[in-house]
Amino acid sequence: MADEVVLLDFWPSPFGMRARIALAEKGIKYEYKEESIRDKSPLLLKMNPVHKMIPVLIHNGKPICESLIILEYIEEVWKDKYPLLPSDPYNKATARFWSDYVDKKVYVVGKKVWMTKGEEQENAKKEFIDILKVLEGELGDKPYFGGEKMGIEVECPKLVSWAKKCMQKESVSKSLPEQEKVYGFVLELKKWHGID
Amino acid sequence: MADEVVLLDFWPSPFGMRARIALAEKGIKYEYKEESIRDKSPLLLKMNPVHKMIPVLIHNGKPICESLIILEYIEEVWKDKYPLLPSDPYNKATARFWSDYVDKKVYVVGKKVWMTKGEEQENAKKEFIDILKVLEGELGDKPYFGGEKMGIEVECPKLVSWAKKCMQKESVSKSLPEQEKVYGFVLELKKWHGID
Repeated sequence: MADEVVLLDFWPSPFGMRARIALAEKGIKYEYKEESIRDKSPLLLKMNPVHKMIPVLIHNGKPICESLIILEYIEEVWKDKYPLLPSDPYNKATARFWSDYVDKKVYVVGKKVWMTKGEEQENAKKEFIDILKVLEGELGDKPYFGGEKMGIEVECPKLVSWAKKCMQKESVSKSLPEQEKVYGFVLELKKWHGID
Repeated sequence: MADEVVLLDFWPSPFGMRARIALAEKGIKYEYKEESIRDKSPLLLKMNPVHKMIPVLIHNGKPICESLIILEYIEEVWKDKYPLLPSDPYNKATARFWSDYVDKKVYVVGKKVWMTKGEEQENAKKEFIDILKVLEGELGDKPYFGGEKMGIEVECPKLVSWAKKCMQKESVSKSLPEQEKVYGFVLELKKWHGID
């Protein structure tokens, strides 16, 4: 049976981007279905009744939810293709640790940055830079591990250089939307949440 | 080389309990080192400089942090022993989904229950029961997935019966502290946070 792979996604989602990059790295053909955060499709509600969130990977009719779990699944099912994780258990644990760190820290505090204003926002920005600096420190002189110009490149040059290196890979650059489009979307979201 | 396994833990931690149960299931001998949340040891700060939190599994001198990542590591390193996860990738993804659900929902809202009072606490309790009911629904008629008597057994009979079944396993019952001891600890914590 030929594999039927569908991705329920929403273009600005960094969690969706993870799945897109993994599928591209593995060279898996899939159908992309765009979802809306305000008007969720019956398919999404059926496939992820618990969280009702994208991304959802539907493989031969069965749903897999949560981006990091989707990545583990892709890695296991298409294991003969380009590996996403190191094979050594300790290095694998380290890779999982940093993915988990990004979920627990970068997204949570990143959201605080654009959901607040004034002094609260300034504090969130400082906290955000500190979190990036931990990643910067971990990256060290290794080639692989967002950098806008607003101070992040000065604070975390290695992290920004890593991001640029990632963007040179087709599996990454072709899976991500343009920066301006994402920025426009964040402005819309701020308006929606009543943050000026 | 004989494996040197050390667990940095704190007795009431449900995250630590996960690691204890997994090590017991696999029959792995290890040294248990009790940590304090108020006075963290230099070893803990060195082994988990990012989060400074237990549990940390130290295997032949190398630290693995975050309870679910520790479980994946134990599963991979001691793979010939009792399996912690199903072998089929889809069933494995489903097991990971529910572990992740517990982390994202049960602990977060469970903390809200004991960190609040009055109407806020009543709302948190309702939210908590709804979260348990999702687990109850998923469990269905399967044998495996606490239930105190305060309504939870009425609301979620299958979940409570599952918990009781788990407690009949030595790897679980011998890895967990007594309920009264945990309850006493929560009362202490509430006092510490100024919640009467």
